[in-house]
Amino acid sequence: MESSQASPESRIPNPEPRLTRVSPERLTDFCVRAMTTVGMTEADARITAGILVRTDMRGIFTHGTVSLRRYVQQMRDGGVNPRAVPQVTSEGPAWALVDGHRALGMVAGHAGMMAAITKAKTTGVGMVGVRHSNHFGAASAYALMALDHQMIGLAMSNTDVVMNIPGGRGAMIGNNPLSYAIPAGAQPAMVLDIAMSTVAGGKVATMKHLGKPVPLGWLTDGDGQPTTDPGVFPSPGALTPMGGHKGYGLALLVETLAGVLAGAAMTTDIISWAKETHQPCDEGHSFIAVNVGAMMPFDRFQARMDELIARMRTAPKAKGAERIYVPGEMEYESEQTARQHGVPLTEMAVNSLKGLAEDLDLHTYLPFDHSAIHNPQSATQ
Amino acid sequence: MESSQASPESRIPNPEPRLTRVSPERLTDFCVRAMTTVGMTEADARITAGILVRTDMRGIFTHGTVSLRRYVQQMRDGGVNPRAVPQVTSEGPAWALVDGHRALGMVAGHAGMMAAITKAKTTGVGMVGVRHSNHFGAASAYALMALDHQMIGLAMSNTDVVMNIPGGRGAMIGNNPLSYAIPAGAQPAMVLDIAMSTVAGGKVATMKHLGKPVPLGWLTDGDGQPTTDPGVFPSPGALTPMGGHKGYGLALLVETLAGVLAGAAMTTDIISWAKETHQPCDEGHSFIAVNVGAMMPFDRFQARMDELIARMRTAPKAKGAERIYVPGEMEYESEQTARQHGVPLTEMAVNSLKGLAEDLDLHTYLPFDHSAIHNPQSATQ
Repeated sequence: MESSQASPESRIPNPEPRLTRVSPERLTDFCVRAMTTVGMTEADARITAGILVRTDMRGIFTHGTVSLRRYVQQMRDGGVNPRAVPQVTSEGPAWALVDGHRALGMVAGHAGMMAAITKAKTTGVGMVGVRHSNHFGAASAYALMALDHQMIGLAMSNTDVVMNIPGGRGAMIGNNPLSYAIPAGAQPAMVLDIAMSTVAGGKVATMKHLGKPVPLGWLTDGDGQPTTDPGVFPSPGALTPMGGHKGYGLALLVETLAGVLAGAAMTTDIISWAKETHQPCDEGHSFIAVNVGAMMPFDRFQARMDELIARMRTAPKAKGAERIYVPGEMEYESEQTARQHGVPLTEMAVNSLKGLAEDLDLHTYLPFDHSAIHNPQSATQ
Repeated sequence: MESSQASPESRIPNPEPRLTRVSPERLTDFCVRAMTTVGMTEADARITAGILVRTDMRGIFTHGTVSLRRYVQQMRDGGVNPRAVPQVTSEGPAWALVDGHRALGMVAGHAGMMAAITKAKTTGVGMVGVRHSNHFGAASAYALMALDHQMIGLAMSNTDVVMNIPGGRGAMIGNNPLSYAIPAGAQPAMVLDIAMSTVAGGKVATMKHLGKPVPLGWLTDGDGQPTTDPGVFPSPGALTPMGGHKGYGLALLVETLAGVLAGAAMTTDIISWAKETHQPCDEGHSFIAVNVGAMMPFDRFQARMDELIARMRTAPKAKGAERIYVPGEMEYESEQTARQHGVPLTEMAVNSLKGLAEDLDLHTYLPFDHSAIHNPQSATQ
């Protein structure tokens, strides 16, 4: 599946990226080896690799294995502690707070969502805040975990500031992603994974790289005014919140749950993982699990979800529209294709993994022909 | 306070509405008398009147006492049962499902949020679904209830279909409001109350009434294409979801929690309270309460919220911007003014209340001079 279809914002906007397909097992093994080489346990490395490889399989190329070289650099430079064991520091019947102890975001996030699921098994609802964590990749990776337990999952994170707020200028808050995964029956699960900005920063960066103006509404300049110039981002301009005060308000909800209530750093105190590898980001996360089966017969819920999804998919089409998607449907199809034909990797991911292999002298373990793509770029540039 | 300031979508867009200020006690007593006259208990009427009057005080004129005449008509026509007692039909440690038994939305909503708060007292988190309910007014009315218990409150409802979805034409889903209320310390609580559409239907109706085009992006026409013609709404056109697939995805989350999981009607099965008074809407709601004090010392949470709010309010201003608001700040100020100077009523609300007084022969109980505004319109027109 090409990523040229009407695409969620997190996809790479390049309409025809050159995709290399590789074995999921070999890619996973390579990732695991890279992380254990810098001191992570095999178990934590498997959790992390599983998340990153599945993210690639789902076509969310910006948040998959392309980031691993950077994560490994953080572990080498001290920003991330590869041996950290996330710990529940306080808890009640339906909640827990977890200290990530500077673990990789995937390790802390996985522990947080598992704790929420465990709470929801007993009480019906589980809510967990995680502090002292790092960049956790695609929020949907954690929401998806709930599906294996017949639960609804929600995952949120605050991020370093990239977004403007109404009346302000410059970046004042993160674009604070929120994801949900909702089980269905015959239909694929419904999965949303969005940031609170109108578009992802990566899209702006691509337009900047191509030397093209962006549509009015994506960005504000250094005066807080709308601009079409991608050059103002990330500074002195900023991304706009989706729907103006609505995206701003929702970003503040995520900041409250994942930052304030979790005890993590907030807004300008968060260090960007893209800019700094020696210091922890101290991002915070919030996870919620809802035990559907406790509240109604699970098959009844499934049938009702199937009905809701069918109403959307079979709705009268707009003139010129060929298909109506429900959230997560494109990623589901991408994952099915990947299971059959291999994990799709963008040229950027291939080059980043090759760079990682060079960093750690792991060339022989690369899951693709070493000469597949030339002109490797440094992931740290 | 005039509602001419940069305004949340639910405010009436008329920049200079003629506001009549009345005594909150007298307005409340009038509303209570109207509801008890058609069979509601004094206690339920007080709950409902409290919600509607406070909504007016907060400047959310579209969802306050202006609607009471319609609600009373529903009770007289059978769509709403004024004597219904909402009932918990199943529950677990952190959740409950409530059957509203066709009660007025305020009565069912109040019972639902109280149940969520009660659960959260014990387990830290409470989540409650309500079915067989009706239009519940402003979602923030229920989220706000959590503040009295040092909790975070969330309130959601599905609605009759008014919104288009990406790739579709016509209305396929409600604009499914979501509200939160988050306690702070020295700062007012942070309160958001949004629908998932780009703008409220009321704004479109006003432009239609004025014979003016709407900005491109608010509406899609009968072909599912963007249009500036407000005449296409509510049919064959529809409101657009805010942020395209993001608002669509969030509306589906609300539909899942408030509709599917609560066991209520969903999407096209919901009957519009504005069109029909003899049949119940069967809207569903979802309420979540988060017991902040169980998770961290409440004063520490308050201090952290104050800090977050201060960072937003004191951020560098955009060129030409005089002030940065946090969610709920305008409504808070409106409420403070109302406590001092009386509840603000729009001309439409005054006329609706006068019409209600006529319907029930309650003229002598009106909280304002009966001749205050001439040319009364029927609320049912």
